[in-house]
Amino acid sequence: MSAPLPSWRPGKVRDAILAFVEAVTTEGGPDHVPPAERIAVFDNDGTLWCEQPMQVQLLYGQAQLHNKLAADPTLKDRQPWKALIEHDFKTLHALGKEAVLGAVIRSAAGVTIAQATAEALAWLTSAEHPLLKRPMLEVVYRPQLELLAFLREREFKTFIVSGGGVDFMRAIAETTYGVPPEQVIGSSLATSLVEADGRLELMKQAHLASFDDREVKVQNIALHIGRRPILCVGNSDGDLAMMRYTLSGDGRRLALLVHHDDGEREVAYDRDFKLSPLVEALDRAEELGITRVSVKDDWDAVFPDR
Amino acid sequence: MSAPLPSWRPGKVRDAILAFVEAVTTEGGPDHVPPAERIAVFDNDGTLWCEQPMQVQLLYGQAQLHNKLAADPTLKDRQPWKALIEHDFKTLHALGKEAVLGAVIRSAAGVTIAQATAEALAWLTSAEHPLLKRPMLEVVYRPQLELLAFLREREFKTFIVSGGGVDFMRAIAETTYGVPPEQVIGSSLATSLVEADGRLELMKQAHLASFDDREVKVQNIALHIGRRPILCVGNSDGDLAMMRYTLSGDGRRLALLVHHDDGEREVAYDRDFKLSPLVEALDRAEELGITRVSVKDDWDAVFPDR
Repeated sequence: MSAPLPSWRPGKVRDAILAFVEAVTTEGGPDHVPPAERIAVFDNDGTLWCEQPMQVQLLYGQAQLHNKLAADPTLKDRQPWKALIEHDFKTLHALGKEAVLGAVIRSAAGVTIAQATAEALAWLTSAEHPLLKRPMLEVVYRPQLELLAFLREREFKTFIVSGGGVDFMRAIAETTYGVPPEQVIGSSLATSLVEADGRLELMKQAHLASFDDREVKVQNIALHIGRRPILCVGNSDGDLAMMRYTLSGDGRRLALLVHHDDGEREVAYDRDFKLSPLVEALDRAEELGITRVSVKDDWDAVFPDR
Repeated sequence: MSAPLPSWRPGKVRDAILAFVEAVTTEGGPDHVPPAERIAVFDNDGTLWCEQPMQVQLLYGQAQLHNKLAADPTLKDRQPWKALIEHDFKTLHALGKEAVLGAVIRSAAGVTIAQATAEALAWLTSAEHPLLKRPMLEVVYRPQLELLAFLREREFKTFIVSGGGVDFMRAIAETTYGVPPEQVIGSSLATSLVEADGRLELMKQAHLASFDDREVKVQNIALHIGRRPILCVGNSDGDLAMMRYTLSGDGRRLALLVHHDDGEREVAYDRDFKLSPLVEALDRAEELGITRVSVKDDWDAVFPDR
């Protein structure tokens, strides 16, 4: 068998991951965790795929704007749509994650979940990423795909817990990440059950049932998984609560914080990225026992080969 | 290998189950369903375990009353507590499922999820069922335990989708049914994230976030599972929406409706059990393509051997 995690450079971080997995999977060892309790949670935007210049779902919202404007021309004078049309990142960043992402998620109302997922899939499998100039589904981080697969080989159950819309992520989570829909937790709209031709479908309502960020991530982990994770991977202050929740359980735990510090191969950002800032988690990582992952130093490759 | 489903009597219903499972698991066959899409959903009360004279969680609420009365003596004059104290089934039935079960679920507020689950587990593993005079965890239906195990052998993923409180069910779902916590969907309270000694916990609030019954079951299936089930098992009108949702998908589907018609080995009831009535689903079963399961005729054994 080849060495695990080939895109993770040898060093303290890779060693920490391997030592953790070894410890919790060693039968009879002091840190052994039964497979059923090997719950790993991953944020998505900025953790599993690129979130620059803005989250992929916002790129989708922008791409859908011509349809939305045809239906409601007044959108062009309203935020965050005006800023999305004008590529006005200063305003988008000032509006913040919930105002922008929440609006884009809400704008998917008025169709069934099945329709919304099919439309998202069609775009995700055909669009090009504006910054990286590669297919949208190839902006995922190669080291993370390896980590997800490695964990599953070691009988972990891998979950996504993200602020992204749950239906949007489910469109590609299984094929891209190997994470089935029932292991994807995200922001969600209220739905109503409708009947057409004897067939029951769920229609998306323009009302956020859950905006899955910060402490809501912990609440949703409890609601959907019902077990405290032993491994948590994130990249922003939106993930700090679930990292702390993970670490404050009994037994051996690991929390990884991806720090985007590689301006050459990707984008270097943290505190000033107001669509998902990294401030407190970075400042408190050491105190809280969170392991910082440097994209620049710890990842030998960032994206999949082309 | 011994024949599957030994507690299911040979006949049309057992044949229908075996034919369905054979069809969807036969590689290359016209009805083949890949393992990832083999989603089976089961109601709990009255489907997986006995709900007479009232749901197990209501028996628990009743058993906890002395603690609750010590904290708030006015409860004895308020419903549904007054009726629970007085074993006044007429009033309990008149109040209905949501009023009674919802109140009992809400009354678990003020403790952490972990505490609530531990307390429920302690009771569930020590209490005796008042009607059946057997340990509380032996009021599960033996044919259903066999069906759950048989489906998992055939690479189905089995979920519970029940009006019962999700934390209450999770206390025993894995050990009793082989269903892990992340595959248990139920009614839930709002929670708040609290910190004590650096440890993060979720405190249950006295506010129902979801009462998982009727169309809400379908909404929660979409939210938690994100896939339309191909098999649905229930026993009351509360399960009709998820049965219809299951059946109205493409391809081969099966919905089973357990009809408690055995007054000798259990309790015969349907229309008049106001804590979870079976009226519409029974009347429309044939029209909707729902397979009726007779406890009397189709189950060779009802409960586990003692």
